[in-house]
Amino acid sequence: MSVDAYLRRVGDACEPVLDRLLADAAVPDDLRLAMRHSVQGGGKRLRPALCLAAAEACGAADAIPRLLPAAAALELLHTYSLIHDDLPGMDDALMRRGRPACHRVFGVATAILAGDALQALAFEVLARPLPGVDPAAQLASVAAVGEAAGPAGMCGGQALDIAAEQRPPDDAGLRRLQAMKTGALIAASVAIGGRLAGVRAERVAALAAYGAHLGAAFQIADDILDVTGGGGDLGKDTGGDVAGGKPTIASRFGVGAARRLAAEAAARAEAALHGVGGDTARLAALARFAADRDR
Amino acid sequence: MSVDAYLRRVGDACEPVLDRLLADAAVPDDLRLAMRHSVQGGGKRLRPALCLAAAEACGAADAIPRLLPAAAALELLHTYSLIHDDLPGMDDALMRRGRPACHRVFGVATAILAGDALQALAFEVLARPLPGVDPAAQLASVAAVGEAAGPAGMCGGQALDIAAEQRPPDDAGLRRLQAMKTGALIAASVAIGGRLAGVRAERVAALAAYGAHLGAAFQIADDILDVTGGGGDLGKDTGGDVAGGKPTIASRFGVGAARRLAAEAAARAEAALHGVGGDTARLAALARFAADRDR
Repeated sequence: MSVDAYLRRVGDACEPVLDRLLADAAVPDDLRLAMRHSVQGGGKRLRPALCLAAAEACGAADAIPRLLPAAAALELLHTYSLIHDDLPGMDDALMRRGRPACHRVFGVATAILAGDALQALAFEVLARPLPGVDPAAQLASVAAVGEAAGPAGMCGGQALDIAAEQRPPDDAGLRRLQAMKTGALIAASVAIGGRLAGVRAERVAALAAYGAHLGAAFQIADDILDVTGGGGDLGKDTGGDVAGGKPTIASRFGVGAARRLAAEAAARAEAALHGVGGDTARLAALARFAADRDR
Repeated sequence: MSVDAYLRRVGDACEPVLDRLLADAAVPDDLRLAMRHSVQGGGKRLRPALCLAAAEACGAADAIPRLLPAAAALELLHTYSLIHDDLPGMDDALMRRGRPACHRVFGVATAILAGDALQALAFEVLARPLPGVDPAAQLASVAAVGEAAGPAGMCGGQALDIAAEQRPPDDAGLRRLQAMKTGALIAASVAIGGRLAGVRAERVAALAAYGAHLGAAFQIADDILDVTGGGGDLGKDTGGDVAGGKPTIASRFGVGAARRLAAEAAARAEAALHGVGGDTARLAALARFAADRDR
């Protein structure tokens, strides 16, 4: 199965789970609509796919549907970060996933709350019992995702990203920023796939290393698409990083060098798979996709 | 031990835990300082105290220090909600816990991220293994807190609160708003104390009912203090609800009637303790404190 077909398969499996999670009648209408607007606006569902592919590589052939809720929760968490990143006080973006940014449709207050609520819902879902999963391993998954999303992970990376507009970081600082902002949650998404499949700490660590390198490749590809526009079909603002003076790998080193760096990161991700064992062909293909994608 | 002395004891036990959680050098300076500014700005530490008192009532005599991290995590979560509630797009508050609101010191972007990061950190800490706690029970605690903090709980309540400025709710709507905004997390704080102590579902449900009534009493007392100013020593903006046209129990029914309603809610909380069993004297005293406090 091609990466595209696998992403479609995961997407098709995730959508009804996400729909159900966002259909709670106890939630005030505006808030529920704002959450749905952003979650259901497409997206590659890459983090769920990485989580499920990792679980399958670790022997959980029934990861779809058994581990779907946890995988879908990663998408809730990612979507919350997009909503908050797009806020006027942050990146002030107009479009996301082919739709107007959440705050433009529902207002800033509701967009902040939609993000907050998605984060809480994500952790609730991550902590709901999963069939055949050891509770201690699941607890460790929740903690790992919390750490990745938190102040030394995704939130810290976004804080560095905002500061970078005023004081451009050096190359090492830029890599650290991207590792925290994008890499941490991607690495955790992969790692918890292994944890939920019940594999030992060394294989989880190898998965996390793979995910961190894949995250770097993914982010560089994102920077390239911001410059090239990806054929105008990305569904979000492009050129904004460069126009906003935000340093990226592509703006700093040029698109050609950035492509080489993305390919190198993908190769490092593939190399890390030696420590994972099992059938890792799909994970390898996902790493190449992350580096070389056009969307 | 008086309620004041117990709150002091819990506060003294929580502070070093909170300090350690907010000392991670991997966190960008501004973000860490913003988180510390808001968490360390005092506060009654009521949610940790309720969690620990519930655990003690359920037989966990060593809840301090054994369950302290989970209790402290509730304070991280509560603080995140205060930071976001105070934002210009929300309640636009100037002062909180005797200090300038987070966004006034660190800017809106960093305040949003500090709140986001505190929520993620809270769930990370809630999911870290606790000595002597069954992982399945702990997982259920994380899910319960996630639900209470999420779209049908705290975030939903804040969404209703914002909407209430334009369209005042009827009395039932106002009670629902307050139950979601304040009651849900307080009820969950109490309930997970029982869960982490290992008691059965019926006692957990009784604790949650107690917590929901206590939360109602607490919120009415808050509304009264917003009107009376509580001697000017609350450390936050007062009179803002009334000035902002926000409906509260105290503004709608008058302070005298509000005091009676708070006392009734506290009495219902005490009555719910019959289903909890154990020594619930401290929980009863906490319910009376919630209704009758001057800070």
